[in-house]
Amino acid sequence: MRILGVDPGYDRLGIAVIEKSNGKEELVYSECFETDSGLPFSERLSLVGTTLERIVAKHSPHHVALESVYFNTNKKTAMDVAAVRGVVLYIGERRKLEVFEYTPPQIKLAVAGAGRGSKEDVISMLHHLVDIKKEILLDDEYDAIAVALTHSAIHR
Amino acid sequence: MRILGVDPGYDRLGIAVIEKSNGKEELVYSECFETDSGLPFSERLSLVGTTLERIVAKHSPHHVALESVYFNTNKKTAMDVAAVRGVVLYIGERRKLEVFEYTPPQIKLAVAGAGRGSKEDVISMLHHLVDIKKEILLDDEYDAIAVALTHSAIHR
Repeated sequence: MRILGVDPGYDRLGIAVIEKSNGKEELVYSECFETDSGLPFSERLSLVGTTLERIVAKHSPHHVALESVYFNTNKKTAMDVAAVRGVVLYIGERRKLEVFEYTPPQIKLAVAGAGRGSKEDVISMLHHLVDIKKEILLDDEYDAIAVALTHSAIHR
Repeated sequence: MRILGVDPGYDRLGIAVIEKSNGKEELVYSECFETDSGLPFSERLSLVGTTLERIVAKHSPHHVALESVYFNTNKKTAMDVAAVRGVVLYIGERRKLEVFEYTPPQIKLAVAGAGRGSKEDVISMLHHLVDIKKEILLDDEYDAIAVALTHSAIHR
């Protein structure tokens, strides 16, 4: 089974594809897709959607695991990230993929257990759980790997 | 020029198509599209998107005028309506339509002027501005007509 993990954003979109076979996960692909802040929002949204469509076509995931959108102090940003969530759900539904959403606490618990779960702990656990061959510079990419692994752990 | 007016929602989606020629507006089409509250959210979102795609294909609008999403007391609802906004923007961008957003006060001012602007005043003005041949039962449909007419008035 293949799981597409998505950390939704229009500025940075974290994407990861995890392959699970015989109860073991392998990282097939990951990236942090960025859009130019000078572009209109709808164009950035379209770039994000087109990228997701491309990844879905290339890696044929069965499920999509999405980090859920929460309210932060900036309402405008929250609403715009919610719009990205809408595009992810829409594409998932149209491609007949099942979409699952996980909150940041659920992800932290699934990946790092009941420990302190600092950002560094989570990243260290991710390297322990799957073989990450590339250098990852942006957290959004780690977050996408984390939500895909969370789905893999919860949805057995 | 044809304008597609949209009052975004996943429960009820207001849709209107206005044709403007020689400075005069005509109502080409309108509906209030409803989805079953028993369906999962992503399916309702997909139905909304599919309906919009169908209307765009049939009526070939040039611009989309969208009532902007605002925070109400229910954060969950606001975030879900924001997801619908994302789908509308995504479809608009992919179909190469220009999308414009108007706030409820902008719409009220454009349609009913500086008067009190009660719901009844606005509806009465809509009937004055365009010939509405059908009986409209749900406000969402009036709201879609109103945002399309707002765009027509502002974007000359």
